[in-house]
Amino acid sequence: MKNKFLLLALGLMTLSTYAQQDLFNEPALVSPEINPDNTVTFRVKAPLAQTVSVSGSLDGEHAFAPISYEMEKGDKGIWTFTTPELPSELYRYHFSIDSVRTVDPSNPYAIRDVSNLSNIFLVEGGKADMYKVQDVPHGTVAYRWYDSPGNDKKRRMAVYTPAGYEKTTDAYPVLYLLHGVGGDEEAWLGSGRAAQILDNLIAQGKAEPMIVVMTNGNVYQEASPGNGSSGFPKITFMLPNTMDGKFEETFVDAMKFIKENYRTKDTKASRAIAGLSMGGFHTANIALNYPNTFDYIGLFSSALGVPRNGVTSPMYENKDEKLRQQMENGYELYWMAIGEDDMDMILRGNESFRNQMDEMGMEYEYVETDGGHTWNNWRDYLVIFAQRLFK
Amino acid sequence: MKNKFLLLALGLMTLSTYAQQDLFNEPALVSPEINPDNTVTFRVKAPLAQTVSVSGSLDGEHAFAPISYEMEKGDKGIWTFTTPELPSELYRYHFSIDSVRTVDPSNPYAIRDVSNLSNIFLVEGGKADMYKVQDVPHGTVAYRWYDSPGNDKKRRMAVYTPAGYEKTTDAYPVLYLLHGVGGDEEAWLGSGRAAQILDNLIAQGKAEPMIVVMTNGNVYQEASPGNGSSGFPKITFMLPNTMDGKFEETFVDAMKFIKENYRTKDTKASRAIAGLSMGGFHTANIALNYPNTFDYIGLFSSALGVPRNGVTSPMYENKDEKLRQQMENGYELYWMAIGEDDMDMILRGNESFRNQMDEMGMEYEYVETDGGHTWNNWRDYLVIFAQRLFK
Repeated sequence: MKNKFLLLALGLMTLSTYAQQDLFNEPALVSPEINPDNTVTFRVKAPLAQTVSVSGSLDGEHAFAPISYEMEKGDKGIWTFTTPELPSELYRYHFSIDSVRTVDPSNPYAIRDVSNLSNIFLVEGGKADMYKVQDVPHGTVAYRWYDSPGNDKKRRMAVYTPAGYEKTTDAYPVLYLLHGVGGDEEAWLGSGRAAQILDNLIAQGKAEPMIVVMTNGNVYQEASPGNGSSGFPKITFMLPNTMDGKFEETFVDAMKFIKENYRTKDTKASRAIAGLSMGGFHTANIALNYPNTFDYIGLFSSALGVPRNGVTSPMYENKDEKLRQQMENGYELYWMAIGEDDMDMILRGNESFRNQMDEMGMEYEYVETDGGHTWNNWRDYLVIFAQRLFK
Repeated sequence: MKNKFLLLALGLMTLSTYAQQDLFNEPALVSPEINPDNTVTFRVKAPLAQTVSVSGSLDGEHAFAPISYEMEKGDKGIWTFTTPELPSELYRYHFSIDSVRTVDPSNPYAIRDVSNLSNIFLVEGGKADMYKVQDVPHGTVAYRWYDSPGNDKKRRMAVYTPAGYEKTTDAYPVLYLLHGVGGDEEAWLGSGRAAQILDNLIAQGKAEPMIVVMTNGNVYQEASPGNGSSGFPKITFMLPNTMDGKFEETFVDAMKFIKENYRTKDTKASRAIAGLSMGGFHTANIALNYPNTFDYIGLFSSALGVPRNGVTSPMYENKDEKLRQQMENGYELYWMAIGEDDMDMILRGNESFRNQMDEMGMEYEYVETDGGHTWNNWRDYLVIFAQRLFK
């Protein structure tokens, strides 16, 4: 009777793409398989393929030239590859089958970065435990729409409220957390694991309960793909109006919405802003143009030093003067982190900014880590930065 | 300078998997391309492949045997296929390249159903306009965690609150909306486009503003893949405890959470429950076992008639008696819909249930539509059912 039951269960699937004989003749592939020694085995069935490889962040997430590992063909057209022992981390990977990029058909969890889908897995027992859903109180993630008159559209943001927010009448501090090129309001929740990181840090008493606001930095969009009125658009590498001052200028719309819709501690001491890459560039400029607004500023691999020829915006004018004003106004923490293997342009841009601050006698903290322009680093930076806030 | 700018933008990508020369030597593929006559062209580059096909819901979403369309190989290893004119609908599709299932690398929007990812596109100008994000006030979607002592775990649900909820002190009616086998708390929002449907119906004055609660019907899970403490699990066709009464029995935990955390009109007249397939089965049983709780019951392609050998639960006992009690208690609407091409087992199960109701003189409405056990139908059913509620 068991087979009959399975068959019926199968019958209820909305999109049965497995032929039934496949299901019953062979066990489903397990991929990835995290072995007891923290090596990881990948498997994919591709009987007609000439070459199959797996790549992603397996060797430490190189942003620009991920190493591809050739997989080996075995019985029944199943290709396999087993990694060396992997340190605890959240990993992403994909297959290339005869040079076509594809997700792992055996792994149901994939996330999008720019226009690419990658599968995800997690090796526990170390730092990645911070990215896991643990048995702790969980905050709420809400997708909210707000009016952005400055962009003449409604826009979507993600808002994390900490566990207990709904049960108290307390006011909370706010961290604005900005994504990079190719991301959107979902990036810090997907690749960034921000909700899990905050849940875990707060439960361990390492971070203050806070609201985390994740905007969409592409003002050309209302929302992430599928969630805006433009439907399911092609993602381009650099959307219009992405680094031309419009986001910074209209950030006031997002802040106004948060103030009016959440119980926030409405003081400079209770406001932080941080961003990665393009979002770090946005962060630096918002901090300059919204004087006396943020006591905590975090630049994660900030895209300083990126030439923006012909771009003009009031947001980008009189920067020296604004920076001096920011110094004079004061703040609790100006925190910059970057990976030593980041792009030269970015490293130089950050160095030049630090030099300017040094010459002015403007205080900051600077952390240089291993690795490059990667989510591995940005998750680390959030873990560190969040613990420094509102104390 | 433009090229330099683009190159820099590219440099900021976190996972550049395109070789730069590809980017600059050839234009990116557009796929899918919705042509002015509502034919749709798919393109994928697979120079080494022997056969490439596209399938999905292009021919009307057959649940069990989607038709595959062979694609034709052209210049530079790019395969193409153009459909006939397609009616307005939300479509899903995937490619098979030398018999390996893959998403479309040119389409950033994909959603998971069971363990398979499919790409999505929408043909406007008809019924699918109801699934679009229109320029109307948008509700909020929140992912909430609630205690489920009956399952000895925390569990995650999605809650849609209509536009304006946060700005009023009004109480709202509640629709509980349940998914099918292989789905989770995200299914009605992804494949089902429930948030867009409700936004649009409410804005057009066709549906009452309501809260929509989307639970996860797999009590074995805390949450969808990646969002629960089991991490990134393999999805099996039938998880343990999926149709054994445990979900129905512990549904009280979800209702208690909603009552305590939302401004609800806490009356039978302001509660509805509906579900598709397995969720329709859950719905029928919850309506039986929570007497005098729901004035509106919707069974969408309900998985009645599915034998569950050896399954015992207080939820499934004394069904005739409970049904008679439900009839005597009364209700506003018992609505059943099913596609004429659904599985025989399901069609027979529903017919048998209707016969029983007829014999008892129990009122219901029955709608038989084209098509089968598909999201195309379930979106239609939600559009119809939501307009009938709370009036």
